[in-house]
Amino acid sequence: MSVPALAPFTTVLDLAAGALEPQRKLVERTLGDMQGIYAVPVPDQREREVVYRVSEVPTPLVEGNLLCSTTTIEPGTVDGEFHMTKGHFHAKLDRAEIYLTLAGEGRLVMATEAGEPAIEPMRRGTVNYVPGGWAHRSVNVGAGPLVFFAVFPADAGYDYKTIEEQGFPVLVVDRDGEPEILPNPRYRG
Amino acid sequence: MSVPALAPFTTVLDLAAGALEPQRKLVERTLGDMQGIYAVPVPDQREREVVYRVSEVPTPLVEGNLLCSTTTIEPGTVDGEFHMTKGHFHAKLDRAEIYLTLAGEGRLVMATEAGEPAIEPMRRGTVNYVPGGWAHRSVNVGAGPLVFFAVFPADAGYDYKTIEEQGFPVLVVDRDGEPEILPNPRYRG
Repeated sequence: MSVPALAPFTTVLDLAAGALEPQRKLVERTLGDMQGIYAVPVPDQREREVVYRVSEVPTPLVEGNLLCSTTTIEPGTVDGEFHMTKGHFHAKLDRAEIYLTLAGEGRLVMATEAGEPAIEPMRRGTVNYVPGGWAHRSVNVGAGPLVFFAVFPADAGYDYKTIEEQGFPVLVVDRDGEPEILPNPRYRG
Repeated sequence: MSVPALAPFTTVLDLAAGALEPQRKLVERTLGDMQGIYAVPVPDQREREVVYRVSEVPTPLVEGNLLCSTTTIEPGTVDGEFHMTKGHFHAKLDRAEIYLTLAGEGRLVMATEAGEPAIEPMRRGTVNYVPGGWAHRSVNVGAGPLVFFAVFPADAGYDYKTIEEQGFPVLVVDRDGEPEILPNPRYRG
């Protein structure tokens, strides 16, 4: 008879704004942290601007556990390219992820190691399934914050390096207020 | 370089009523299916009454994948014991689960194999973490449907038999309209 390592616990999610109460772990990414991720360099004067925040419910990073988090991406662009998360593969490549969008309008941009792209819509109520093997990045294409709740296996881990080196095969750019998907000329997958 | 077995896809969740569109897989449980689960036998004339429905987003049941679903429990009691799900351990005992409640008022009743109980509140916005090793049952203690969205590892599997044989260490009963937690005199853990 096994004794569980963790006791049950509850967090409260604001289903409109995405806040988690209590806030257990917060990561902020500035445009400075995103240097090299956009198609053009981030201007010096924008380096301290926060692009997105991730509020996470931590658990031990072992097989069987789950992590969940709320991500909020501020609206805006860098030289026409919409604000977005860095994007990553899972270090354990086969780990899936589920995204539930609470507010805003976005595009979930995914890619396989072989460079096959996939794009799914994000808006309040969409449940996106990111299968194992797909790098994933969320892009805010709306006028307000893009807010989504994510659940994924706690042992998934992050491989940011592949995306930092290769980029995604596509970019999401602002074409007269509408998102347009373009091939990424700098993609090196 | 691995080729993913699944392509990304999107389902739309009604964040008020819980419906999943498209509806991919639906399981209905009647009171007849719950015979032996409540403290008293279910009366014959109520056997066809639907107690809860689970609408699931299926994926292959292998390590790395995730399942998500919406469960709707109708309000009511059986001889004073609130409507509830059967409850189960995961067959892979260490698999966790995350519940996000969308509507109603509930209690998430959990228990370890050793018979330690835990009870967490469920109401719109609560995110309950069910760690591996905890059997879990949700109980509708409100006047309307209890609706929650759940995410769990696709390889978790179900062990219903242990609960069918042992019960949970506690019951949730209606005491003048308020939920009361009582020791289960029939618990055989």
